[in-house]
Amino acid sequence: MKIITVIGAGQMASALSFPAIENGNKVRLVGTPLDRSVIDSVKTIGFHPTLKRQLPKTGIECYQIEEVNKALEGADVVICGVSSFGVDWFAENILPIIPENIPILSITKGMIDLEDGSMITYPQYFESKLPANKKLSINAIGGPCTSYELADKDHSVVAFCGHDIEILRMLKSLFESPYYHISLSTDVVGVECAVALKNAYALGVSLAIGLAIGPDGLGHEHYNSQAGLFGQSVKEMKHLLEIVGGGDENIILSAGDLYVTVFGGRTRKVGTLLGQGFSIEESIKRLEGVTLESIVIATRTARGVRALAKRGVVKLSDFPLLIHVDNIINAGATAVDIPWSSFESEKI
Amino acid sequence: MKIITVIGAGQMASALSFPAIENGNKVRLVGTPLDRSVIDSVKTIGFHPTLKRQLPKTGIECYQIEEVNKALEGADVVICGVSSFGVDWFAENILPIIPENIPILSITKGMIDLEDGSMITYPQYFESKLPANKKLSINAIGGPCTSYELADKDHSVVAFCGHDIEILRMLKSLFESPYYHISLSTDVVGVECAVALKNAYALGVSLAIGLAIGPDGLGHEHYNSQAGLFGQSVKEMKHLLEIVGGGDENIILSAGDLYVTVFGGRTRKVGTLLGQGFSIEESIKRLEGVTLESIVIATRTARGVRALAKRGVVKLSDFPLLIHVDNIINAGATAVDIPWSSFESEKI
Repeated sequence: MKIITVIGAGQMASALSFPAIENGNKVRLVGTPLDRSVIDSVKTIGFHPTLKRQLPKTGIECYQIEEVNKALEGADVVICGVSSFGVDWFAENILPIIPENIPILSITKGMIDLEDGSMITYPQYFESKLPANKKLSINAIGGPCTSYELADKDHSVVAFCGHDIEILRMLKSLFESPYYHISLSTDVVGVECAVALKNAYALGVSLAIGLAIGPDGLGHEHYNSQAGLFGQSVKEMKHLLEIVGGGDENIILSAGDLYVTVFGGRTRKVGTLLGQGFSIEESIKRLEGVTLESIVIATRTARGVRALAKRGVVKLSDFPLLIHVDNIINAGATAVDIPWSSFESEKI
Repeated sequence: MKIITVIGAGQMASALSFPAIENGNKVRLVGTPLDRSVIDSVKTIGFHPTLKRQLPKTGIECYQIEEVNKALEGADVVICGVSSFGVDWFAENILPIIPENIPILSITKGMIDLEDGSMITYPQYFESKLPANKKLSINAIGGPCTSYELADKDHSVVAFCGHDIEILRMLKSLFESPYYHISLSTDVVGVECAVALKNAYALGVSLAIGLAIGPDGLGHEHYNSQAGLFGQSVKEMKHLLEIVGGGDENIILSAGDLYVTVFGGRTRKVGTLLGQGFSIEESIKRLEGVTLESIVIATRTARGVRALAKRGVVKLSDFPLLIHVDNIINAGATAVDIPWSSFESEKI
């Protein structure tokens, strides 16, 4: 039995309580300042209002953020359960109070672009934010897994990544279950880059859905065009993985994660609306309240690639889909002008 | 204007008449002995009964098989439009009568396993069947494209492959259109292997659909499990591409083609029925009349991999999904026993 302190009571972090508790562990669920009502609900009736599921009846203790120190006392592992919008809060408020011997497992997916165009992962970002002389083992979860289906115990195949394989094996032992299958990798950059990119590209693939169903939403979905964009996405993600120095085998994660995001994720909704011809402002308005990480990630990735192109490290023409998505989001381009012919290649 | 003689009036071959005729070419559609009623229908009312579309009103001439020599007279290109079940008929009856100066473009996807476990493409197979001293330029089409959507002029991104880039460029000029986008590759083995494999793996991914909706078909689809199988498929296809010596970039085609086959193809129906718990015999019975190439390809690929494993060239444990699919089809295994934990890996 281990004590797992989860900081951030969002959907995915909370869904992890199912395999954790089934394995005989104790979960301490700590809300961020934005999670007060979630914690109140779980505490009183056991119901998670955004995950829309009853959490396990036993094995969970709930804490508001003021009680975070108590929740960390004697903890064996800390889960960083914030979205990409909460990472700075986590870095400033939580990292300093986690004891050095407690490993962190982060569910936040994404990359951050630096000014020179290089992109770093959240584990790298967290490491850069540690107080002087402080060391923490920062690990992360990647791979195709939506929180609802994890809570419903549907089979999921994910990857835990970090620098120390022994710590990864320990973390795996806490969560591995008959429905939650975990690969391990010390290629943190490869895994995190692979899973971050799929958000941007899921938006790109979903454009074809919106284009097919049309502004009134009454048309039929077509799959040739989705598959064309899916293939182009894999091509560009493969190239981006090379650029950041991630192992080529991580394209397996990218492809699986792209698949689940196009079908089960929120990004699909953004891309579909844009494909239907709504502006980015109108699309965001229609999705009020929905986390829009894909927009942030697409913008960041494109900014990174543009900066690298300026330095001559990459050719912008190798990323026509990413640039098109970025132009829709940030420069008023219309979805229908997908640069199809630039996806063509000649291999001699 | 070129004359394109299409032999085999199946759905995909017939759908190609749309971009071909839009580019100002003439199409001569020749039915195989199995296509008599198709040819009669197109000839009299212009309607293709299995594609379920009106073919272009002008530019198509129809021929029954007895008129094949007339249809070949003055032709610039021959399309081989038979399914994998028709390749031997095509090799025996048509290859010998095609003049050497006319290039062939084949739409048949698939690989054939030889006794030693090595797999060859249909272009290679056709070349091996040519009469002594006869030479033909045999090219092929790969990539994600369903015939219905091509006929509806939805955007599709495909690849033409062959040994001679100049011939490929000429072929591209006949079919390239605002909705039919064509990459070219001289890596015939890579392209053909990539697109053949996806049939077997689309069956594997679809198992998760059947498992989720259940025997009565009333359950909801889950995407985590589909994505887990999709990622594993990409992993195994990538490895198989290495084995046959195909370029690694062809995984882009495999992934895109896998995507469209899971969503728009017939293979989905087979995998779903098997996933629902029906035996292979019962599943085939329920799909009466539907081409079941995926079953043939999965069986062949697995047979090839098993032969290679016997020779020590590969490890069978690297292909747990393919072997599971093969065991369901050929050894009475049940779909529910998906070897999830064997998909896990450790990368240090």
